[in-house]
Amino acid sequence: MPPQFDDHFRATLADLFVWRRDVRHFRSDPLPLSLIQELLALACMAPSVGFSQPWRWVMVDDPDRRAAIVANFKQANHRALGQLDGARAALYARLKLAGLIEAPVHLAVFVDPKTEVGSGLGCGTMPEMLPYSAVCAVHTLWLAARARGIGLGWVSILDPRQVLQELDVPDHWRLVAYLCLGYAEDEQDQPELEREGWAVRQPPENVLVQR
Amino acid sequence: MPPQFDDHFRATLADLFVWRRDVRHFRSDPLPLSLIQELLALACMAPSVGFSQPWRWVMVDDPDRRAAIVANFKQANHRALGQLDGARAALYARLKLAGLIEAPVHLAVFVDPKTEVGSGLGCGTMPEMLPYSAVCAVHTLWLAARARGIGLGWVSILDPRQVLQELDVPDHWRLVAYLCLGYAEDEQDQPELEREGWAVRQPPENVLVQR
Repeated sequence: MPPQFDDHFRATLADLFVWRRDVRHFRSDPLPLSLIQELLALACMAPSVGFSQPWRWVMVDDPDRRAAIVANFKQANHRALGQLDGARAALYARLKLAGLIEAPVHLAVFVDPKTEVGSGLGCGTMPEMLPYSAVCAVHTLWLAARARGIGLGWVSILDPRQVLQELDVPDHWRLVAYLCLGYAEDEQDQPELEREGWAVRQPPENVLVQR
Repeated sequence: MPPQFDDHFRATLADLFVWRRDVRHFRSDPLPLSLIQELLALACMAPSVGFSQPWRWVMVDDPDRRAAIVANFKQANHRALGQLDGARAALYARLKLAGLIEAPVHLAVFVDPKTEVGSGLGCGTMPEMLPYSAVCAVHTLWLAARARGIGLGWVSILDPRQVLQELDVPDHWRLVAYLCLGYAEDEQDQPELEREGWAVRQPPENVLVQR
């Protein structure tokens, strides 16, 4: 029998959407491997084009590999800062944009664009549906993690080709997300970039048109 | 105070992940506009790179525009079928891959890759983070819809550049998803492509590696 979702569940789901945050301030307490496996099993329930399930997960524990990722981030972040001027540059420099050092778990997410599972159904005109499927899996993992009190931060200030080498994964994979996971230092219902004045929330009616 | 998510909520959330399906069989009962607006407000709580909120939503009601989308789908689907042989082609031909005709609501989702909101933060090395943010919004909408008994189908068998013209939206936008929404004819906990034998579920441990 299909489950009946009630008002209480819908209200709590809305709370989950509001309190799911991109976390950059982690406590260093470890996460049990069984918890990571539980999150991955849920993430693999995400929708995927042609049922291709093209997501690939890499747990990064080796200290040298982690250090290479941190260096990759620092270089990309330094370059990004170099593109900004004045007050914007000063604010950017003050933001903490990744929790790579403190987060107990590093999880890199790739897509295998050559997967044969699903036989390419739904990808003929929009091959980007494969990475989009991996994004749905990341978002599923994120919500499941937050529902367990675990924070997630998505780091995209990285040279993605360099990550492939640093993690020694197949050449034809493509990086979709580099994730930090761990307990958050504090819980927030507002994006850090909103609190810091980097950008403001757009009303939904501003981004809806009718045709 | 941050909400405390409990075991009951986590179990119901897992049910939502399992029963969220890609729906292609819709009843034609209309959906109230207030419900669509409620779903869009929740979708806009999705994570976005640099808090850029780059998603753009287009409700498609005009019968001529809808007919153009159906024709676009039929052409792309015919081409996709032409790439297959034998039993695979026969199975593909039998699958119902979109519910465009019956679904009461058509919602096209675009990304504005030139948005100035967020000032490009997090996009320097991975510009694909902008469409990925729109994908997170689609997935949020999908879960919120299913929690209200509403089914969603994601149609990707379309020429995306043609969709831009058919819906008369700015040239520089990019199609991320074309969604059908409505009440599902039946509820399922298994992907239709799995039930039809198109592809099989991959065990999560097959797609996890350690480094």
